[in-house]
Amino acid sequence: MTGPTSAPSRLVIEGLTPRVDEGRHPVKRVVGEPVTVGATVFADGHDWLRVVLGHRPPGARAWAEVAMHSVNPGLDRWEATFVAGATGLHRFRVRAWIDHRATWRHALARKVAAGVDQPSDHEGEPPARWPAAEAATSTTVEVDVDVERALFSTWYELFPRSLPSKGPDGRVRTPLVAVAAELDELAALGFDVVYLPPIHPIGRSFRKGPNNAATASAGDPGSPWAIGSAEGGHTAVAAELGTLADFKDLVAAADERSIAIALDLAFQCSPDHPWVTQHPEWFRHRPDGSIQYAENPPKRYQDIYPLDFDSSQWEELWAALLEVTSFWCDHGVSVFRVDNPHTKPFAFWEWLIAHVRQRHPGTVFLAEAFARPAVMARLAQVGFSQNYTYFTWRVSAPELVEYFTELSTTPSVDELRPNAWPNTPDILPWHLHHAPIEAFALRLALAATLSPSYGVYGPAFDVGENRPAGNDTEEYLDSEKYQTRSWTTALRAGPTLRPLMAQLNQIRHRQTALHTLRTLRFHGTDNQSLICFSKTDHRGPSVASDRPEAATMLVVVNLDPGQSQAATLHLDAAELGVDPSRPFDAVDLLCGDAYQWHGTEPWVRLDPAVAPAHLFRVTQEARA
Amino acid sequence: MTGPTSAPSRLVIEGLTPRVDEGRHPVKRVVGEPVTVGATVFADGHDWLRVVLGHRPPGARAWAEVAMHSVNPGLDRWEATFVAGATGLHRFRVRAWIDHRATWRHALARKVAAGVDQPSDHEGEPPARWPAAEAATSTTVEVDVDVERALFSTWYELFPRSLPSKGPDGRVRTPLVAVAAELDELAALGFDVVYLPPIHPIGRSFRKGPNNAATASAGDPGSPWAIGSAEGGHTAVAAELGTLADFKDLVAAADERSIAIALDLAFQCSPDHPWVTQHPEWFRHRPDGSIQYAENPPKRYQDIYPLDFDSSQWEELWAALLEVTSFWCDHGVSVFRVDNPHTKPFAFWEWLIAHVRQRHPGTVFLAEAFARPAVMARLAQVGFSQNYTYFTWRVSAPELVEYFTELSTTPSVDELRPNAWPNTPDILPWHLHHAPIEAFALRLALAATLSPSYGVYGPAFDVGENRPAGNDTEEYLDSEKYQTRSWTTALRAGPTLRPLMAQLNQIRHRQTALHTLRTLRFHGTDNQSLICFSKTDHRGPSVASDRPEAATMLVVVNLDPGQSQAATLHLDAAELGVDPSRPFDAVDLLCGDAYQWHGTEPWVRLDPAVAPAHLFRVTQEARA
Repeated sequence: MTGPTSAPSRLVIEGLTPRVDEGRHPVKRVVGEPVTVGATVFADGHDWLRVVLGHRPPGARAWAEVAMHSVNPGLDRWEATFVAGATGLHRFRVRAWIDHRATWRHALARKVAAGVDQPSDHEGEPPARWPAAEAATSTTVEVDVDVERALFSTWYELFPRSLPSKGPDGRVRTPLVAVAAELDELAALGFDVVYLPPIHPIGRSFRKGPNNAATASAGDPGSPWAIGSAEGGHTAVAAELGTLADFKDLVAAADERSIAIALDLAFQCSPDHPWVTQHPEWFRHRPDGSIQYAENPPKRYQDIYPLDFDSSQWEELWAALLEVTSFWCDHGVSVFRVDNPHTKPFAFWEWLIAHVRQRHPGTVFLAEAFARPAVMARLAQVGFSQNYTYFTWRVSAPELVEYFTELSTTPSVDELRPNAWPNTPDILPWHLHHAPIEAFALRLALAATLSPSYGVYGPAFDVGENRPAGNDTEEYLDSEKYQTRSWTTALRAGPTLRPLMAQLNQIRHRQTALHTLRTLRFHGTDNQSLICFSKTDHRGPSVASDRPEAATMLVVVNLDPGQSQAATLHLDAAELGVDPSRPFDAVDLLCGDAYQWHGTEPWVRLDPAVAPAHLFRVTQEARA
Repeated sequence: MTGPTSAPSRLVIEGLTPRVDEGRHPVKRVVGEPVTVGATVFADGHDWLRVVLGHRPPGARAWAEVAMHSVNPGLDRWEATFVAGATGLHRFRVRAWIDHRATWRHALARKVAAGVDQPSDHEGEPPARWPAAEAATSTTVEVDVDVERALFSTWYELFPRSLPSKGPDGRVRTPLVAVAAELDELAALGFDVVYLPPIHPIGRSFRKGPNNAATASAGDPGSPWAIGSAEGGHTAVAAELGTLADFKDLVAAADERSIAIALDLAFQCSPDHPWVTQHPEWFRHRPDGSIQYAENPPKRYQDIYPLDFDSSQWEELWAALLEVTSFWCDHGVSVFRVDNPHTKPFAFWEWLIAHVRQRHPGTVFLAEAFARPAVMARLAQVGFSQNYTYFTWRVSAPELVEYFTELSTTPSVDELRPNAWPNTPDILPWHLHHAPIEAFALRLALAATLSPSYGVYGPAFDVGENRPAGNDTEEYLDSEKYQTRSWTTALRAGPTLRPLMAQLNQIRHRQTALHTLRTLRFHGTDNQSLICFSKTDHRGPSVASDRPEAATMLVVVNLDPGQSQAATLHLDAAELGVDPSRPFDAVDLLCGDAYQWHGTEPWVRLDPAVAPAHLFRVTQEARA
C-alpha cells in the first residue's frame, strides 16, 4: 500500500460465498469439511489480477493465504478451498490486487507472439515504475466449525419409564438404570445419541390422563413436559426415574460406548414448579391474578404454564435458564433436544447457545420446531446445530427431491443441518396410520440415507406401532406421553425393524459418503415409485480402491410398501465419478448382491417383502 | 419503546427487496415508477404483527408510513408499494412490532368461536398490562429517482462532419449548424437524444487514415476519439465543426424540440493534446521516457494516449475531468455517452457522476462498455443511468428471451437500464454483414419495443449500410470514424428505414406500456422465427378505455428477414389482463389491421417485405 494519497482501489470483490444471511451469521461446518470459497473479483481495464484466500483458524493471529484460481473468467469468478481442521470460529476473507508485472509480461508475450515486437526490443526493459499494489480486501466471513456429531448423528428416543422395571436378573431397578442396561443393544443397533424426554419431576395439578384426558387417575404418570413439582424443577431428577447419581452413571456408561445421552430442554413449567411461587413475575397473569396457562384454541394445556419472555424480569429469567442448561452440561450432557424453540425469542437462543458453547464447545442443540421456513432458518442461524425437518411429511418422490434439493444446496446447506425423523412421540404421520411395517422400513431407509442425522422414536417405531388416536390427529393412540407402554412382547414377537436398523446404521458409519448432505444428487428413474440418489465423500467422488471407505454410494428406495417396483435408472456418470464408457461395479451393501453395469441405464427391482432399498457401493477398476 | 431494561426485539425483518448489491448502492427508478417493497417479517410464537413501510422522499424529515399486507403467510412475506413522485434520493425502511391487543382479541374470538368461552366471560377484561411494543426497524434502503429520460429515450447518433456542407439555400455552413438544420427531421422521426461523437480538435500525430490506415493523407479528418491538438482539448470545439457559439445554438434549437444533444466523454488524449505537455504525469511512461500509447496486441493505437488513473497525481486528474464534464453541463448538455468507462476506475465514475448530479440533477450518463456482466452491473451500480447491452449480438429467439428476461427481472432491473443498439460506428454486427434492409428493419423493431431506451447509428443504419471492413471484423468498410461519408444520395434514393422509424417511435411515445422494462413478458409461439412478448404500463395491465394510452402492447417480430413466417401464439391471458373466456381486440398499430380474438391461441403471419412486426394494442370491452 502506498501513502494516503494513493487512489481508491480499482478492485471489486463481491458475491462472496459461502455466507449466511449476507454475513450476519456464521457459516456452519464440522471438523474436516472443506470450505470452498467463491468470489467475483474484477477491476477496470484488462490488467492481470492476483486473488488470494485468507484463512484464520481459531486462535491464530495471522492469515494463511492461498492463491485463488479463476473458474469462470467470463463471470470473473474465483475459487479456493480450505479445510476446517479444528472446532471453533474460523475466519476467511479474499484479498486481490493488480499484478502490474504480470500484466506487462503477458502484454509483451502477446506482442512477441503476434510478431509485432521482437524479444530483443525489450532487453532489460522493466518499466520505469511499478505502481504500488493497491490491494482490496473483502469483508471477513465467520465459519463456525463444530464437532462431527453436529452433522452426523443417529438418534434413538425412548421413554425410560416404559422399560421393564426388573432386569434380567429379576431385581427391581430404576428406569434410568434400565436405560443403562439397554445401551449395549442400542450401540449394537448403531445409535450414538439416546434422547430422553424430560426427566424432571412432573406436576400434579391438572395432570393429564391417558390419551390426553383432562383428568388423571392416581396411578397416571403425567406428561414429562409438565415440568416441576414440590420435588423440584428443571435441575431435579424425578424420583420415579431414579436419582441424579443414576443419571451420572448412565451418562458414564453411555460415554464408554460413544453414545451421548441427550436431554430435553423444555422451558415451561407445571403449575407446581417451584418457580411459580418463587418467581411469579416470570409468568403472564390474567386480570384476576391467576397465571395464564398454555392454549391453542380450542385446545387448553392447563398442566403447562409458558414462561413470559416479555416480562420485565427477563434478565433474571434468561440467567436461570442458562443456569439450568449449564447444570446439565456440568453433569456430562453434550446434546440437547430443545422443545418448541420457536415460541421463545431468537435473541434468547443466540445468547444461551453462545454462552453454553463458550464453556462447553462441543455441545449440540437440536431445534424441535416444525415451523415456517423462515423461522426454521432463523433458529439455525442463531446457533442451533440441527433442526427437525418436514421430512416427516414428505412422501412422494417429487416432494422428497424438491425438499432435499433445497436442504442440500445453498443457502440452506450452509446454515441448517437437518435431522430427519420418520416419527416422534407427537407425530405418527398420516401416511403411517395403519400402515404395514414395510412402510416404516422405507421411511427408515430414506431417513438413514438422505440425511446425515436422523432419529426414531422407538420402540414404537421398531415394531411399527401404527394406531393413531383418531382419524384427524397425528397423535399416537395410548401415547407414551401420558402413560407407560410395555414394548417387550412386541419386540420379542416381531417382526421388528431392528435388524434393518442395525444394517443401515452400520453402513452409515462405514461409508463416509453418507456422512454428508452437500454431495446429494438425485438421478432419474422411469418409475415414480422408485427414488434414486447418490452421495460422495465430501472430498469428492472416489471410485478407486485407494479410499475404500469413501466410495460413492448410490441409493434406490421403493416408495411403495405394498408391492414390487422396477425401473430403469438414468444415472449421471459424472456425479458418480465413473467413466460411462467402461463397466463399473455396484455392490448392494444391504443384500450383498454384486452387479457389473455397462452404461448409465441399469434396471433395478425392489420387493418390499425383501428390502426397502438398494444401497449400492459404486466402484470402477482403474484404467489398465 | 420501554427503557433500557426491555428485552431485545423478538422480531426479525429480512429479505428486504428491492435492494442493489445488498444495499450498498441505491435502487434505480424514474419519476412516476412504483417501488414495491417486500420483506420477510416474523417473530417467535404466534402473536399478531403490525408491519409498516416507511418512505422518506428527498428533503422530507419524517417517514410517511403505510401498512404492509401479508402476501404469503407461509413464507412470512409482506408487501407495500409507494410511487417515486420526485427526482432525488428517496429512502425506505420497514418497521414491525407485536400487536398484543390484536393477539388477545383474536385469541378471544377463536375461543368464543370454538365454544370454549362465552363473550360474557371476558366482560371488561382487558389484560392487566400490554407489554410495550418492542418495534424492530430494518436497515434503510436508498432509491435514486431519476428523470424519465434515464429510462425511456430514443437515440440517434450521427457524425456532423458527414452532413452536406451547404444548406438547402446553397450557403456554406458549419457541421454543427448543419446538425441544427437536421433537428426537424430527427424530431419528426421521433428521436429525443441526438448523440454526437467527440466534437473536439483532433490530433495530427499518428492520425489514422481511411479504414484505420496507419498514416493519413493531408485531407483526412482523423478519428474524433483522438482528442486534442494545439487548438485545445476536451473543452474546445474543433474549428472544422464550428464554434462554441454554434454548439450553444444547436443545444438551444434542440431544446426547443425537446431533444437533448448528447456529447461523448472519451477520457483519452491524442499525442497533441495540451495535457500531454502540461501534465505529463497524467500519462504512463516507457523506460525511454516516451508516453505509452494504447494497444491491444497486435493492434496499436499510436494516435491515442490513455490517461493513467494509477498516477500519483490522480486527484488533479480527477478534478480536471470533472471540470471538463461540468463545462459541458454549464453549456446545456444533460446527456453524456461515456466512451469505454470500464477502462477507468469504478471509484472515479462514482465520484464524478455524484458530483455532476449534485449540481445538475437531471444529467444522464450512458456507459459504453460491452464488457463482462459483472463489470456492466458495477458501472450501473456506481451511477451510470444507462448501459449499452449485448442486444447487438442476441439474434435468435432463445437468445433474446434469455437476455431480456435477465434484464427485466431482479437484480438487474433495479440497477441497470439497458439501451439497445442494433449498430454503432464500431459495430456492424456479423448478422448484418451484407444483410438485406429487412434484417435492419427487424433489428430496429426489436430494439424499439424490447428496450425502453434504444438508439441507432445513422444514417448508416437508415439506409442499411451492410459492408464490413473484412470477413473477420465488425468494423464498417469506409467507417465514418476515419472519413466523411455522404448519405444524401442513399437517403434520397431509398429504400430507407426512416418511415418505419417514424412509425415505431410515434407508437413508443404514445403507448406508455413501451416506456417500461419491468412488465416485459414473453409468450409462446410454435415457430422459433417469431418472437412474441407483451408489456403493460407500470401501473399494471389496462385493457379498458379509462387509460387508453396505457393499453397493453403485444409485439410479434419476425426474426427471419428472408421470408414470411406464420405461427400460432400461446398467450398468457393474465399477463395481458384479458378475460380469455370473452373475445378481445388486437389492433396492429403499424398496419392498422384490427382483429377480434377468441381465446389465447391466435394465428399470425408476418411478411418481411411488408412489415417486420405486429405491434398489437390489446383491449377488451368491459363486461356488460
